[in-house]
Amino acid sequence: MIKTRLTEMLGLKYPIFQGGMAWVATPALVSAVSEAGALGILGTGHLNAAETLKAIQETRERTSKLFGVNIMLQSPRVSEIVKVCLEEKVPMVTFGAGNPAIYIPAFKEMGIMVFPVVNNVALAVRLKRTGVEGIIAEGREAGGHVGKNATLPLIPQIVDATNLPVVAAGGFADGRGLLAALSLGAVGVQMGTRFICTQEAEVHPNYQGAIVKAGDLSTIISGETIGHPVRVIRNQLANKILELEKKGASLEELEALGVGALKKAVYNGDTIEGSLMAGEISGLIKDIPSVLQVLSRIEEEFYTVFNSLRFQLENQDRI
Amino acid sequence: MIKTRLTEMLGLKYPIFQGGMAWVATPALVSAVSEAGALGILGTGHLNAAETLKAIQETRERTSKLFGVNIMLQSPRVSEIVKVCLEEKVPMVTFGAGNPAIYIPAFKEMGIMVFPVVNNVALAVRLKRTGVEGIIAEGREAGGHVGKNATLPLIPQIVDATNLPVVAAGGFADGRGLLAALSLGAVGVQMGTRFICTQEAEVHPNYQGAIVKAGDLSTIISGETIGHPVRVIRNQLANKILELEKKGASLEELEALGVGALKKAVYNGDTIEGSLMAGEISGLIKDIPSVLQVLSRIEEEFYTVFNSLRFQLENQDRI
Repeated sequence: MIKTRLTEMLGLKYPIFQGGMAWVATPALVSAVSEAGALGILGTGHLNAAETLKAIQETRERTSKLFGVNIMLQSPRVSEIVKVCLEEKVPMVTFGAGNPAIYIPAFKEMGIMVFPVVNNVALAVRLKRTGVEGIIAEGREAGGHVGKNATLPLIPQIVDATNLPVVAAGGFADGRGLLAALSLGAVGVQMGTRFICTQEAEVHPNYQGAIVKAGDLSTIISGETIGHPVRVIRNQLANKILELEKKGASLEELEALGVGALKKAVYNGDTIEGSLMAGEISGLIKDIPSVLQVLSRIEEEFYTVFNSLRFQLENQDRI
Repeated sequence: MIKTRLTEMLGLKYPIFQGGMAWVATPALVSAVSEAGALGILGTGHLNAAETLKAIQETRERTSKLFGVNIMLQSPRVSEIVKVCLEEKVPMVTFGAGNPAIYIPAFKEMGIMVFPVVNNVALAVRLKRTGVEGIIAEGREAGGHVGKNATLPLIPQIVDATNLPVVAAGGFADGRGLLAALSLGAVGVQMGTRFICTQEAEVHPNYQGAIVKAGDLSTIISGETIGHPVRVIRNQLANKILELEKKGASLEELEALGVGALKKAVYNGDTIEGSLMAGEISGLIKDIPSVLQVLSRIEEEFYTVFNSLRFQLENQDRI
């Protein structure tokens, strides 16, 4: 148990969101995370309306705890996914990779909580006006679709500009990171890559293996030149995309390469031609524990670091 | 006063280094920072041997406290600057923008402390073997010359890999950031941009004004394509460089544009054709206080945030 404004607000044991990753955040993972006391969030980036409905129903069968649904704004099926979430009255939604302002009023009317994923101050301020419950401020360290700002400078700026509950994302995998996020003014963290590397994640072991083997310099950003920057572990596909970008390849050419590439990695375990989306924090991830073990370790480390800082500072007159 | 392993080791009041920025970190700023209880570090990237000697002497006249000298490894005069620092037996040196391994033994022999600036784990591990006293682990958020990794994922990886005192750099300007750095396992922070915006910094008000006006998306990285990535506030010069890089311009063409550009910004206040080196944290910097005010504010904020976290966590059994 780590109490923050976020755990009070959502009735959680840990101030931790599991990122709603396409292909990865399935009912099995989401329900395991929610059951363990954090917040599981369904990924729908790879689903149609019927599949989304099925995933929501399956999650509800597996847990009675709070969970969320991520709506990926670059999906061609955004409006039908939105419709399913409204009809099902899911407890909360997150939005990634875009500006969700036009969709928010419908969710507010239904009493569904909204936490958009945001990478800059202007969008956070704009979305505050729509009545969102909180902001997931995600830095460029994150895996998958990313913005310009790094997490460390981004968090305090969004906290200052919005005064909303801010969940920090991008670069988090352990208890030290969680304490750092709270120090910056966040109320919790969202983690993606750390949850890919859990027993409950229904992903191919090759994909997990690529993350476990990764070092601090293993990830790169592809797609920057066409306005769709995505962080992945460097492999043959990533090198091919970067090479084509250098030659000024068009959006269409690059998108053709990207179609199905995430599925290839997650589902087929193709580490050569698959898109190995993963965060810069991959270098810190060295094993595949259970979700419960991940959360217990974070709790243990969080309090160890906090108590050691407290001990170190205690002999001074300010504590 | 904020006690850490770093303040104990160096006899400081604050676990804070002022980055050794070329043109900016002059004896006036360096001595003000050291006098106030943090560590001032001379910038020598723009100096020759005689000027470096003069700057060291002037700093010694202004303060009897500990100070450092930054040796910029991309300077054409590295070996003569190294020689001056050895002859003068300065208390400590930092090295930026490269691999200083070949220079370190001479400093060790003289009993001069060495803190290299590093952006990746492999270099940190290699430099540990040379006997350095600590590592300044600097993320891509920093101003000026940068590497690939962001600060937040970088720090714990370098702490784990080296077990040396790690000073976190890139993205720091306030007490929240300092507490975040200590949470990640660092023993202190280095700040550059925050010290540019102080009364004691001998820089043109236009340069300071550009930082104060900057928002979260104002800085960009230029020079990536030629292997010399530098973070600056976007202006006409930066746009011109990015445009030329897109067209595949050579190192020589781009270097011609860069010559004297930092001096133009810092010294002449040319915010159009000057190189406005500054970190991503510029968006958080809103004024030009004195060095002492910067440090007092950081101390105040650090303890406010720490005590508020402590209060929030105290009702739980782990604290």
